Amino acid sequence: MTSETMLYAEDIEAGQEYPLGSYRLDEDDLLAFARQWDPLAIHTDPEAAAAGPHGGVIGSGIQTIAIYQRLIAQAFWQRVAGIGGRGFDVRFRKPVRPGTTLTGLARIDRVEHRPEKGTAVVYLQTDVTDDAGDVVLTVACDAVVLRRPG
Amino acid sequence: MTSETMLYAEDIEAGQEYPLGSYRLDEDDLLAFARQWDPLAIHTDPEAAAAGPHGGVIGSGIQTIAIYQRLIAQAFWQRVAGIGGRGFDVRFRKPVRPGTTLTGLARIDRVEHRPEKGTAVVYLQTDVTDDAGDVVLTVACDAVVLRRPG
Repeated sequence: MTSETMLYAEDIEAGQEYPLGSYRLDEDDLLAFARQWDPLAIHTDPEAAAAGPHGGVIGSGIQTIAIYQRLIAQAFWQRVAGIGGRGFDVRFRKPVRPGTTLTGLARIDRVEHRPEKGTAVVYLQTDVTDDAGDVVLTVACDAVVLRRPG
Repeated sequence: MTSETMLYAEDIEAGQEYPLGSYRLDEDDLLAFARQWDPLAIHTDPEAAAAGPHGGVIGSGIQTIAIYQRLIAQAFWQRVAGIGGRGFDVRFRKPVRPGTTLTGLARIDRVEHRPEKGTAVVYLQTDVTDDAGDVVLTVACDAVVLRRPG
């Protein structure tokens, strides 16, 4: 990517929206992730979870965050001259069952320009929705982005 | 686990500390996670990253969160009569290079009892530190925990 197609701090403005595309979460994927990173029966044990409040396993919230990150990395951060994320505030709004297709939409909330540092802090809000259009995850994220060189 | 060895809302008190153990993040593990969930060159491309500010790849922040979750699931949540996490606030304090051993320590900040619902909301703060003892990640998490039955 050249400096003409890259997005710099000056290209990012409050109110802009970036559709992030979709990811289908199948049961095998859900179980494999949870067994490695979130080994709790509600995420890893279909038999035990069948008797629970959701009638089966639900996805690890950490995997929902990972799916959010995959979508936003591919649709946005790969095009941005970024230095790195500083943090997240994440809310889990609705359990995610196997077979759900998750879709992301990011909005720029605020851009705090710091010309003396050659950077800006970008504040984004992302909703991740399920097939029914219900929000399952909201992420507020702040990251440092470079200003255009020269 | 029986109801005698399980932890319920009444067993969890502000000020309690839970050591979460450690996880060594090797380069193969780091690259495999990032290629699947956070496909940005700083995490996935050792050659490109060698010329960058960290002299090589750094771990995806999402993987640091996943490691935190693996540690706290094994050391704490597997013993707790929990309903589920409501959300996180996560701050990335220091980049994580391959070969780092991460260690977690959770502290209970506050327990909000809701006897009418049979639950409590537990607020935890966790520091994840590297081999040098520096904090690389802080996580503030709130989750719903059941009260002891009967």
